[in-house]
Amino acid sequence: MLDRSAKGVFVIAPTPFLPDGALDLDSADRMTDAFLAAGASGLTLLGVMGEAPKLTQEESVAFVARVLKRVAGRVPVVVGASAPGFAPMKALARAVMDLGAAGVMVSPPPGLKGDEAVVSYIAQAVETVDAPFVLQDYPQLSGITMTAPMIARMAADPRVVMLKAEDWPGLDKLTAVRRLEAEGKMPRIAILGGVGGQFLPEELARGADGIMTGYAFPEMLVKVCELIWAGKRDEAQDLFDAHLPLIRTEVQPGLGLAIRKYVLKRRGIIAHDTLRAPGPKLTAETAGEVDYLLGRLSRVQPLKAAA
Amino acid sequence: MLDRSAKGVFVIAPTPFLPDGALDLDSADRMTDAFLAAGASGLTLLGVMGEAPKLTQEESVAFVARVLKRVAGRVPVVVGASAPGFAPMKALARAVMDLGAAGVMVSPPPGLKGDEAVVSYIAQAVETVDAPFVLQDYPQLSGITMTAPMIARMAADPRVVMLKAEDWPGLDKLTAVRRLEAEGKMPRIAILGGVGGQFLPEELARGADGIMTGYAFPEMLVKVCELIWAGKRDEAQDLFDAHLPLIRTEVQPGLGLAIRKYVLKRRGIIAHDTLRAPGPKLTAETAGEVDYLLGRLSRVQPLKAAA
Amino acid sequence: MLDRSAKGVFVIAPTPFLPDGALDLDSADRMTDAFLAAGASGLTLLGVMGEAPKLTQEESVAFVARVLKRVAGRVPVVVGASAPGFAPMKALARAVMDLGAAGVMVSPPPGLKGDEAVVSYIAQAVETVDAPFVLQDYPQLSGITMTAPMIARMAADPRVVMLKAEDWPGLDKLTAVRRLEAEGKMPRIAILGGVGGQFLPEELARGADGIMTGYAFPEMLVKVCELIWAGKRDEAQDLFDAHLPLIRTEVQPGLGLAIRKYVLKRRGIIAHDTLRAPGPKLTAETAGEVDYLLGRLSRVQPLKAAA
Amino acid sequence: MLDRSAKGVFVIAPTPFLPDGALDLDSADRMTDAFLAAGASGLTLLGVMGEAPKLTQEESVAFVARVLKRVAGRVPVVVGASAPGFAPMKALARAVMDLGAAGVMVSPPPGLKGDEAVVSYIAQAVETVDAPFVLQDYPQLSGITMTAPMIARMAADPRVVMLKAEDWPGLDKLTAVRRLEAEGKMPRIAILGGVGGQFLPEELARGADGIMTGYAFPEMLVKVCELIWAGKRDEAQDLFDAHLPLIRTEVQPGLGLAIRKYVLKRRGIIAHDTLRAPGPKLTAETAGEVDYLLGRLSRVQPLKAAA
Repeated sequence: MLDRSAKGVFVIAPTPFLPDGALDLDSADRMTDAFLAAGASGLTLLGVMGEAPKLTQEESVAFVARVLKRVAGRVPVVVGASAPGFAPMKALARAVMDLGAAGVMVSPPPGLKGDEAVVSYIAQAVETVDAPFVLQDYPQLSGITMTAPMIARMAADPRVVMLKAEDWPGLDKLTAVRRLEAEGKMPRIAILGGVGGQFLPEELARGADGIMTGYAFPEMLVKVCELIWAGKRDEAQDLFDAHLPLIRTEVQPGLGLAIRKYVLKRRGIIAHDTLRAPGPKLTAETAGEVDYLLGRLSRVQPLKAAA
Repeated sequence: MLDRSAKGVFVIAPTPFLPDGALDLDSADRMTDAFLAAGASGLTLLGVMGEAPKLTQEESVAFVARVLKRVAGRVPVVVGASAPGFAPMKALARAVMDLGAAGVMVSPPPGLKGDEAVVSYIAQAVETVDAPFVLQDYPQLSGITMTAPMIARMAADPRVVMLKAEDWPGLDKLTAVRRLEAEGKMPRIAILGGVGGQFLPEELARGADGIMTGYAFPEMLVKVCELIWAGKRDEAQDLFDAHLPLIRTEVQPGLGLAIRKYVLKRRGIIAHDTLRAPGPKLTAETAGEVDYLLGRLSRVQPLKAAA
Repeated sequence: MLDRSAKGVFVIAPTPFLPDGALDLDSADRMTDAFLAAGASGLTLLGVMGEAPKLTQEESVAFVARVLKRVAGRVPVVVGASAPGFAPMKALARAVMDLGAAGVMVSPPPGLKGDEAVVSYIAQAVETVDAPFVLQDYPQLSGITMTAPMIARMAADPRVVMLKAEDWPGLDKLTAVRRLEAEGKMPRIAILGGVGGQFLPEELARGADGIMTGYAFPEMLVKVCELIWAGKRDEAQDLFDAHLPLIRTEVQPGLGLAIRKYVLKRRGIIAHDTLRAPGPKLTAETAGEVDYLLGRLSRVQPLKAAA
Repeated sequence: MLDRSAKGVFVIAPTPFLPDGALDLDSADRMTDAFLAAGASGLTLLGVMGEAPKLTQEESVAFVARVLKRVAGRVPVVVGASAPGFAPMKALARAVMDLGAAGVMVSPPPGLKGDEAVVSYIAQAVETVDAPFVLQDYPQLSGITMTAPMIARMAADPRVVMLKAEDWPGLDKLTAVRRLEAEGKMPRIAILGGVGGQFLPEELARGADGIMTGYAFPEMLVKVCELIWAGKRDEAQDLFDAHLPLIRTEVQPGLGLAIRKYVLKRRGIIAHDTLRAPGPKLTAETAGEVDYLLGRLSRVQPLKAAA
């Protein structure tokens, strides 16, 4: 089970598909192995990057079941359960918790009006899933603002164990939450950064316990955490900077997932870079640009994933 | 099966729930009877008003199955199948068409960029559901603009049989589509109006074949169509105007469905006015306002639904 | 000067233009006379309906000056001063207050994040204009939510004298504000309704002190207020209902102002129905629909404005 | 005058303020000198980054006049003239063209519906300003999509000389425009990239003629263009990569301008990093992060601007 002491790199996994769009569960196994070999402290399934809304309920559960089986308890697995209604949220949350998930992640939906409505929605969501709860703060997608004092109120429920901090810009909010904790105004919760890894060094310096993101080279994320926590900030930044051109390419809205699947395929982590429709396709020009960046990156980072 | 000659009043049905939030299938039967007794030419299930995203897939299919059984082929039943991915759209469309639905209704999703992307999305959606297709033009919800020339292009596929015209303002677009048809630039399709019934007389005068909406007194909609088509415009407008204060109250965003369920309950059409969470609750003040309007309306319209 | 005891009908005036788009200051005079003859308790200039952003600063001031001169102190005149920066807001507010305006109206701008940011913005705006302040709550336009508790906080500054309540739906919020006042949690402020007049009877019943809107027959708004305050609710509703079909037509987003100017021209209140570009044009069909409604309305309401 | 052969780096200049918020015209001079010394091929004033909507009309003109005087015709100066109405757009465009600007830049406003409405708006805007026209494609801000075929239609007017390509992701669109030109479907226009410089090497490789952005080290942008055009792609990328951590920091929405002004101040280019209210403030933490990045950058790039 996930608790407030969680830390490290939680890799957000895509959902692999065969060229015809069917679930590719063999790739799910290989991907699980690769992420664990890269040093992941946890996995996150069915996030935005997991194309969750394009899966049927059965497929969602089948994919989660397969990954959980492969993980076999070695690391906690978080499952995204955001839904327009509490009934389907509850159904999915129960199913995946019964299968062995460590917690669920929920973002408030678009359209809530005012701070109070957001705080109240999350309280109901926590009650609904009744499991270790990861609060996803992703305003670019949800359109919902969560300020530090709102997060403090939500964290009063002990089931809220983790904040996935995905606001952009969001570093000052991260600092503000840690400050409220230090002032005794809220319990200390786990905070993992996000936004594609773009601000990992700063997030860690501001007090994040790690990061939850889907960048295609999670071993870099792991190493940067280690270096920063060992006080080697410059060395961490050097490594980070070498990856930044690719990170910048991956975080492009709409296109990013296609690029990530392309890189994961080139790394041998998944067999196909298929996205379910509707979804973007990589042009030859974009693929060429990614190839060029991968070539440069290979000076410091092997392309092929460790087995 | 739905075809391009469809006309009249298609009633958008809510999904009735018991006080604990479970499906109320007995109310589904009673509601079906009441809408048919009111003169409905068709029914529409799992629309926005049907709280579709708050249902699990099993519940959606169970509700559709129950209504279809009760309708027993007397009128066509359209089922909403908008979904973030084509895989769940296909799954639902197949399930309901197999059960006997007459067609499916789909709106383009938020986020499509540019006319071409919308036209192309709909072409793929039609291919995906491969059934009589109702094109839902509801920009207040989808954020997507469909101009008359775009609709003409979409209507080139013979499976696109009907336009649910829900833009606001949308009357000039309705005229523009009919003009393109008259000029031979697109085939004639069925057009049903919407926006809660607020512009029914004008929609019909502009060439709509009827209306698809969830106003709680569908018998008025039926009667206004009859009067207009009999050339009795003033008489139609008199009847319409008597209902307009309630229509105005029902079309309030967010709150409208709660008001409709309240009225349907007061009419004896459904047993409970329960909405699934998250959803608004009627205050005593709002209920009192609706009661006042129902009292005034009773001068021209019996409150209790015909059996 | 505007204070918290303001009540009645504040007519939101359009900005009249000549056919070539130049300011039509003669129409401004005639319009001012007509609105005062209709019983207006106040006027509002340079609102959304006044095409304010399409005016140069000089034109804005020239128009306000002309109306103020014509009003000659008989009723308070509120001027819209929303702006993306406090510098132009201050410049306009000073200019119009020096000319004799009674107060300024400001809406928070799109993009503010969280309740605190909105409250803080308004506090700065009040400081900036340093004049009787009308708080415009118009979320359909601003995208900003103001809850009753937020309004209570803003009203702590004695310069905040009036709330223009334009949320939709917004009646329960109006009640909530009046409740906070009754509980001593905020001072009593003037509240004028809005949303084109669609809910005038309900707004008054919920405790509004009148309405601020641009409906083209302000004499109806005045009469409904009188009737309601005299306890004649049914009579008020009868009069209101006769106007509702036209109100419904005027509140259509984008198109509404063109319709209002058309009606004001037909009433002899302004000379031309010109809108500044970019702006919509009325089709012949829409004009015909409005003419039909005006014909029906003439059974209870003379078309020509009183001089 | 700007024409379709324009190329190189057009620096988007901020508007410098004194600590009390007044225009800082001395800094405007120094900034102009610094940008020209850095190798700018042009300057752009009153863009989003120029806090244009926070200036009064007089201030806008005063600032433009000062910069134009200092430039003294050495490079073309483009002035942003987007406005909610054509009347203020025309007034500003005429004023700045009379002062010696080389062209104006306009973005379509939020709210236009459908491709046709956008193309038609731009046609009217070009007619309105009647000057060399820079089409700003900045959907993150405007919410407006411009596809390559739409751009082709707009470019049919010979006054449309340049596209500022600011879509994100936007590289494939850039390629699509160049392809339409190569196919003879539109005239060749100047294209300058944007998005804060994040994709400069790729933009140039896709056929951009340079970049128009406000990154605080324009000398890097100039050098990267030179290297790429000299065929030294790897060398260009090395230089670019060294700046990417700071670029990433500067492009954060909302906060970015505050960071840029802070850097420009540290470089000695402007005297104060004042933003006009409402606007964000840099926290000590953020300033510290920027300082750290500037320190690292100093290994390849002097902090102090060349005089």
